[in-house]
Amino acid sequence: MNEQKVGNYLIQRLYDLGVRHVFGVPGDYVLGFYQQLEQSKRLKVINACDEQGAGFAADAYARVNGIGVLCVTYCVGGLKVVNAVAEAFAEKSPLIVISGAPGIKERRKNPLLHHKVKDFDTQQRIFENITIDSVLLDDPRRAAEDIDRVLSSVRSYKRPVYIELPRDIVSSSMDIEPTTPSVLHSGTAVPGGGGEDERNQIDIALQEAVSEATKLINSSKQPVIIAGVEIHRFGLQDKLLHLVNKTNIPVASTVLSKSVISEDHALYIGVYEGAMGYQSVREYVETSDCLILLGALMTDINFGISPTPIEQSKSIYVTSEKLSVKHHDFENVLLQDFLNYLIESNLTKRNLLNTGKLDYTGGYNNNRNNINSNYRYANLRNEQKQQQKQQYSSTKKNQKITVKRVFELLNSFITENTIVIADVGDSLFGSLDLTIHGQTDFLSPAYYCSMGFAVPAAIGSQLAKPNHRPIVLVGDGAFQMTGMEISTIARFNLTPIIIILNNNGYGTERPMLDGPFNDILNWNYSKITDIIGYGKGFVIETENQFEKCLFATDKIYSNDLCVLDVRLDRNDRSPALQRLTDLLGKKVK
Amino acid sequence: MNEQKVGNYLIQRLYDLGVRHVFGVPGDYVLGFYQQLEQSKRLKVINACDEQGAGFAADAYARVNGIGVLCVTYCVGGLKVVNAVAEAFAEKSPLIVISGAPGIKERRKNPLLHHKVKDFDTQQRIFENITIDSVLLDDPRRAAEDIDRVLSSVRSYKRPVYIELPRDIVSSSMDIEPTTPSVLHSGTAVPGGGGEDERNQIDIALQEAVSEATKLINSSKQPVIIAGVEIHRFGLQDKLLHLVNKTNIPVASTVLSKSVISEDHALYIGVYEGAMGYQSVREYVETSDCLILLGALMTDINFGISPTPIEQSKSIYVTSEKLSVKHHDFENVLLQDFLNYLIESNLTKRNLLNTGKLDYTGGYNNNRNNINSNYRYANLRNEQKQQQKQQYSSTKKNQKITVKRVFELLNSFITENTIVIADVGDSLFGSLDLTIHGQTDFLSPAYYCSMGFAVPAAIGSQLAKPNHRPIVLVGDGAFQMTGMEISTIARFNLTPIIIILNNNGYGTERPMLDGPFNDILNWNYSKITDIIGYGKGFVIETENQFEKCLFATDKIYSNDLCVLDVRLDRNDRSPALQRLTDLLGKKVK
Repeated sequence: MNEQKVGNYLIQRLYDLGVRHVFGVPGDYVLGFYQQLEQSKRLKVINACDEQGAGFAADAYARVNGIGVLCVTYCVGGLKVVNAVAEAFAEKSPLIVISGAPGIKERRKNPLLHHKVKDFDTQQRIFENITIDSVLLDDPRRAAEDIDRVLSSVRSYKRPVYIELPRDIVSSSMDIEPTTPSVLHSGTAVPGGGGEDERNQIDIALQEAVSEATKLINSSKQPVIIAGVEIHRFGLQDKLLHLVNKTNIPVASTVLSKSVISEDHALYIGVYEGAMGYQSVREYVETSDCLILLGALMTDINFGISPTPIEQSKSIYVTSEKLSVKHHDFENVLLQDFLNYLIESNLTKRNLLNTGKLDYTGGYNNNRNNINSNYRYANLRNEQKQQQKQQYSSTKKNQKITVKRVFELLNSFITENTIVIADVGDSLFGSLDLTIHGQTDFLSPAYYCSMGFAVPAAIGSQLAKPNHRPIVLVGDGAFQMTGMEISTIARFNLTPIIIILNNNGYGTERPMLDGPFNDILNWNYSKITDIIGYGKGFVIETENQFEKCLFATDKIYSNDLCVLDVRLDRNDRSPALQRLTDLLGKKVK
Repeated sequence: MNEQKVGNYLIQRLYDLGVRHVFGVPGDYVLGFYQQLEQSKRLKVINACDEQGAGFAADAYARVNGIGVLCVTYCVGGLKVVNAVAEAFAEKSPLIVISGAPGIKERRKNPLLHHKVKDFDTQQRIFENITIDSVLLDDPRRAAEDIDRVLSSVRSYKRPVYIELPRDIVSSSMDIEPTTPSVLHSGTAVPGGGGEDERNQIDIALQEAVSEATKLINSSKQPVIIAGVEIHRFGLQDKLLHLVNKTNIPVASTVLSKSVISEDHALYIGVYEGAMGYQSVREYVETSDCLILLGALMTDINFGISPTPIEQSKSIYVTSEKLSVKHHDFENVLLQDFLNYLIESNLTKRNLLNTGKLDYTGGYNNNRNNINSNYRYANLRNEQKQQQKQQYSSTKKNQKITVKRVFELLNSFITENTIVIADVGDSLFGSLDLTIHGQTDFLSPAYYCSMGFAVPAAIGSQLAKPNHRPIVLVGDGAFQMTGMEISTIARFNLTPIIIILNNNGYGTERPMLDGPFNDILNWNYSKITDIIGYGKGFVIETENQFEKCLFATDKIYSNDLCVLDVRLDRNDRSPALQRLTDLLGKKVK
């Protein structure tokens, strides 16, 4: 018989899944579990200033580590993280939410216990809208099974799950035979996959789909892979590399999946972002006769808010939820399996150089200066890098700093040990031109787009990758939402570089529709390190100061928090943002 | 025909209800409505640093003004305020939530528009759990009717409602005859009240209930009124006064309803808070042979976490949702009507002095020193005041400041133009001993107990009562959650005094179950005014410093924000908190 307590069982399972840190804020309904966490010595508690900060930090940890845990108290904690968990749901981040709760016994007669909103199950019902699975652990005898089920769900679907742990259950003995559910030790589960017959049907459909896709790819002249965020979430980066290297088919990422493949890879052509991005990448993708969309969310931001320019008759579109080759839909054939089979299929290997088939011979380029009518995909990327390099070398002294220059100068500062975290707005759009060297070393809520993600995300990502230093790009508006989580950064001796793009308000909204509601108070951001007694603050007004400051963060303050108040013109913005806001503005008015 | 735009109609209706300020943070899906607000010149937009801060500010405004409005963008705004709105629901605060949303037209084909979580109605479904009514304004022709319905609901039930305003509807013309729905101009609606027959049934029940109650009251020796928070929410303070003055029955408040009656009133005996409060008040209430509970929520905090000591056979219990006299329940008879009828009924007027009937002759007092075996209710309050006065006069120089002394010294500083706002923890429990002079000049989330309410609430309450100065009592833990909303305080030139009870962590939790998770980083709180360039910061370590500082906030910085960092011992706490945490601690372990 297993005498383990429910809370300790949960802790063991989380540890088995590779979790080492738990983010949250304690409260009386969850204190017992916090004590178990502390005593377990296996999972470190990271308590943030506010639950919202803990939520974003746990989400970032989940994205980097492969799984993350947020642990809060009932309602006054849980209902503060609804937005952060919704973001994890929308962008497929494998986040486990554990909430303390009133004891099962004290719920009888439905008394008005503090923190209760309406009914005792109100919080769980709310979370059912933003999680893929949820459970109230109301029976210690069933707890192991219940816990294993939701942990299996988070691994299969890469979306948040919710576990409610009443305070009179957390220390209850489970009194059951120890089980080792296969799902916790197997590979990816097959959502919807049931008996043997069903599995055979899926196999047949899979073979058909792969055969059809192979034919389409081999007969195409200019195929291109768009590698989406699910490649990262399902841990398929190596498979993607294998496919790319085997076939020599060039690959683009999306806004949400930037850095899913090292941006130094010879076959990487850049971020495809519709009307927002490099025109050359857009043209290459949109004139392709075979688009291979792997795990890409077809969001408006990913495609630059323009009507989706993807022609289905030329596309292979596969995600963890659906697959279609041209107009054929295949039921229950999913990304993970499809990619495995595709790699094994009879795909032609293309020549890297001088192959007529791969040359770009589209007709979009007549009205553009910097595009050759006959260049290879490899040139696309070289061209981008060349441009960045030239931009860097032309630094002028006493020249007022601009958004464009921030990103140009920053580009040469990024190493293999950098994680770039971009908040929403120009922090994101400007970052898209940065070259990220490692895999998944770029984080941004690029679809759901909740402001305030980036500073707390630095906590989660640096704890998940301790040998990496985060560079946070955040607007002043977003910083005012969650920036005080630098307090948590200080408590746990983390060392991010926080670059505040300070333009006195909601710069992304001004070009859509401006008014006094887009103004915010200007803070003395560089003095904020005095409040927490940790880190170094800088005020940046010129290109020269920014360059010197970057140098100092690396040479002098390499083991410290650095906060850069980069003072921009109120109406300054990146070219990408300008294009995006023009498009969004039309919808607002 | 009415050519009014949907957004402008909504603004007009809010104005008619007495709303003058709208709290929120703009975002692209709600920008059009923000522009209408700005152009209307009727409602002032108060944009906070974060939606959470706007939520608490709007809730406080609702509590003070009688109705409040929170206006946010879709999901990334709305889902950040779920906790704040849940608090308003739990504590019956009449808060209107308006959320921008994707246009109805752009929702077709269910595309992945930014900010969307799962389905387009996900946000509304979540809000259905924490509001009393909700509507998606998807049809301009029905918009007036829909808006009037939810505004009627918020007035009838004093609980939050949700209005979702798609961005392609906000400027649509309504094209209907202008209507003036009677409900907007009538008094309180009767929930569940339908046709004439039903109304007659209710009248009969009401007469029966009042007759039974009158009999019980008149035949009792020691009746006492417990005036709950609904007296304030439904605007029944004058009725309560009338009842008290007509009958000379003494009145207590609850934790959540503190200041529902002026605490200088001769018949006010204090806050009844079970085991937490003054023993004398507890004894008077618990030995009463006729408890008249008017609009009181029977929460655990209100009754000091002890098993409810209220004997139903001696009680008249009436709220906006139910009425019972002893064990008789009356359907559909509600607080508002009951109070009106009770005042008109044949209640005996008691003598204020020397009436044997009113003397306290209970038997609880043998083991207590400071209770006379034969005193009148009026003495209860005098005794409390006497005690406070003595405490004040004994200030010692260089004596380290304690929680107890903070509240004792503060008591003489409160005037008729003070609103006291207490956050959760000792900020609340310590505040219960303060004497509040005006009606509803004390605010605290004393049932739902979400940390972080108080600083943003200062914004809402001072805008609602501009001639009052808020005194905010907030722990360091709660301040780290939402304290940076002092930025919003600065933007709108507000002048609260913020007293941070700084004990290096979650002091309310330490006595229940302590661990490193209850520690937080110590901030230099007094320097925080340097960050925003507004206000004056103070460090307080002794009683003397605190006294001088209070004087300075009044004489020198009367038109400024004042932030007091009151450095307490880590384990210092008020006697009330000590008693409460002892009780809570037993449930956690």
